[in-house]
Amino acid sequence: MNTYKICLLPGDGIGPEIIAEGVKVLNAVGAKYDTAFEYADALIGGAAIDATGEPLPAATLDAARASDAVLLAAVGGPKWDTTDPNAPRPEQGLLGIRKELGLYTNLRPVQIFNALADASTLRPEIVDGVDMMIVRELTGGLYFGRRERFYDEPAAGVDGAPGQRAYDTLEYSEYEIERIARQAFEIARKRRGKVTSVDKANVLETSRLWREIVHCVHDEAYADVQLEDLLVDNTAMQLINRPADFDVVVTENMFGDILSDEAAQITGSLGMLASASLGDGVALYEPSHGSAPDIAGRGIANPLAQILSVEMMLRYSFDMADAADDIRRAVTEVLDEGWRTGDIKGAETPADHVVGTERMGDLVVERL
Amino acid sequence: MNTYKICLLPGDGIGPEIIAEGVKVLNAVGAKYDTAFEYADALIGGAAIDATGEPLPAATLDAARASDAVLLAAVGGPKWDTTDPNAPRPEQGLLGIRKELGLYTNLRPVQIFNALADASTLRPEIVDGVDMMIVRELTGGLYFGRRERFYDEPAAGVDGAPGQRAYDTLEYSEYEIERIARQAFEIARKRRGKVTSVDKANVLETSRLWREIVHCVHDEAYADVQLEDLLVDNTAMQLINRPADFDVVVTENMFGDILSDEAAQITGSLGMLASASLGDGVALYEPSHGSAPDIAGRGIANPLAQILSVEMMLRYSFDMADAADDIRRAVTEVLDEGWRTGDIKGAETPADHVVGTERMGDLVVERL
Ligand SMILES: CC(C)[C@H](C(=O)O)[C@@H](O)C(=O)O
Ligand SMILES: CC(C)[C@H](C(=O)O)[C@@H](O)C(=O)O
Repeated sequence: MNTYKICLLPGDGIGPEIIAEGVKVLNAVGAKYDTAFEYADALIGGAAIDATGEPLPAATLDAARASDAVLLAAVGGPKWDTTDPNAPRPEQGLLGIRKELGLYTNLRPVQIFNALADASTLRPEIVDGVDMMIVRELTGGLYFGRRERFYDEPAAGVDGAPGQRAYDTLEYSEYEIERIARQAFEIARKRRGKVTSVDKANVLETSRLWREIVHCVHDEAYADVQLEDLLVDNTAMQLINRPADFDVVVTENMFGDILSDEAAQITGSLGMLASASLGDGVALYEPSHGSAPDIAGRGIANPLAQILSVEMMLRYSFDMADAADDIRRAVTEVLDEGWRTGDIKGAETPADHVVGTERMGDLVVERL
Repeated sequence: MNTYKICLLPGDGIGPEIIAEGVKVLNAVGAKYDTAFEYADALIGGAAIDATGEPLPAATLDAARASDAVLLAAVGGPKWDTTDPNAPRPEQGLLGIRKELGLYTNLRPVQIFNALADASTLRPEIVDGVDMMIVRELTGGLYFGRRERFYDEPAAGVDGAPGQRAYDTLEYSEYEIERIARQAFEIARKRRGKVTSVDKANVLETSRLWREIVHCVHDEAYADVQLEDLLVDNTAMQLINRPADFDVVVTENMFGDILSDEAAQITGSLGMLASASLGDGVALYEPSHGSAPDIAGRGIANPLAQILSVEMMLRYSFDMADAADDIRRAVTEVLDEGWRTGDIKGAETPADHVVGTERMGDLVVERL
């Protein structure tokens, strides 16, 4: 019997509620596939700030490093929102763990469950067949560049008076672009063989370097994959215009943040989308949605993205493709039978098919 | 009789074709409203590179400065695409003129013409009532920050070998944020009284400064306007989810580039959207779409965004609101009568109502 150690990071808002359903599913899968999962809970985000003053305590990093995979729920909330550059912020926990574990590849699959095709605000014929993988660079760019705020700078205020000034730095090195490009091409080979590389090469120097390196990697080792360049502004349009045309989309950190959320919204059910953050060691899995503080603690949050992040964990970290397929099948069945949480219910959903977080987790487990 | 001098910048691709229709409309309006428009043609973008080696020759800047308003068509094309940091690029012409004329406010109205409501890939009930104004900061941020490329940097290549590295700088000063925030609040007062300020304050220092200053300006002078903050990734989602909820959206340069194109695509007819770039002196007007090199020279490009940029010119630079309304009415009539260029034709458009660039311009002029 295999044993895997999983570090659990419930975080903030609905985090603790949904991660419990992820664990439930892991346990069910473990029983079925003769695998033991051992869990270690750790603090991150606002919860960690409240308990220790820091968004990413050293003990959390130790627990993550000692595990075979990390399951994260969500971080952040208005309680910790601040524009004070020196105050700790929940997001630093998330950014910190990505950087410390070297999780440079963020995979965000965008797919539509048939039962939820109506949830999209796009016309049905436009979203029909949407199936893309957004590959976002996760440890470089504006997120991790040097940044600073200056007070009382000469002429930075109104009418040439002293005022504030701030900067962030968008930086990329060849090796950072190289390795994420490789990931994208490898993934495309297992899919429909097409990569769209997104940049703003008509303005940014980092984008021109990005484009050059992506093409180098392509021409040297992946000439069998189809490669196209698309400017980020044009991509923001085309994602709405012809979403089904995209296969693999690879881009830098900030563009990836914006475009992956836009692409997620195309499905109309953000509560269904999971993501995997991979590096050269331990990987991290999380829902694509946030901590939804407005509905926290009420037992109504949708746990399916968290459960689907468990699916990705089985697939990418434990090589348990059958178990992963099993989870996807179970989720699909639950949806096909008409079960919905509040966020994905439609006008036609009967009241007795609208369920809470725990019940939704149970329904999936029953079908495993 | 008033006389206005207009600097014409046809630029590249379909530019020369569509600007001719803008001029036609200006002349018709001039005759009707007893106003004389004098034109001075100048070079910009790829056309300027081909003729002079520079994307923004000094003579062009002189002509723009000597005018009462600038009418631009479009710049760029694959002919001048390059990742060489030292090669001249058409976009430098556009960025250069924005900077040199101090055009810090970019207004991008997003509206749906009833006759074209079907063009959207979004469901009709979602786009119904969409009417927003994107206010994009246009002379700061990543577009104009320090940038550099380094070759053979130690450890910047694969496996710690020497390689390339590049950076761009995202920088904002208090006064730059102050003045664009004021613009947004002023515009909101003349509209539905709501401003959505978009940033990434959970990551970027410039965004935290942005948020602070926007709130200062609001609390001091515009407390009557409703202000909300929205993270850029969430905005990319909400634009698709509930586009009709937005009134004025204000954001920094790069976010504005991405979100305004996304918002434009929501209408499904990018060929209909114009933009105004304002500063403290001469203003510049242009279509929101690009130079469409693939259809250049064929007389089939849609001139309506260019014509609507003339509408904005009359409104913002010449205080000719009646004439501006007249143009909008004429365009609306032409569309209501079913006339279409190729890009906005529907499955039901009769072949004899699909017209070329010149004919579309004539149709608008006939209705003035
Ligand atoms: C919470 C935030 C810092 C984070 C990001 O911007 O990366 C989130 O939006 C995401 O996409 O995972
Ligand atoms: C051509 C390009 C440099 C420009 C920009 O990014 O500002 C364009 O996309 C725009 O939005 O006007």
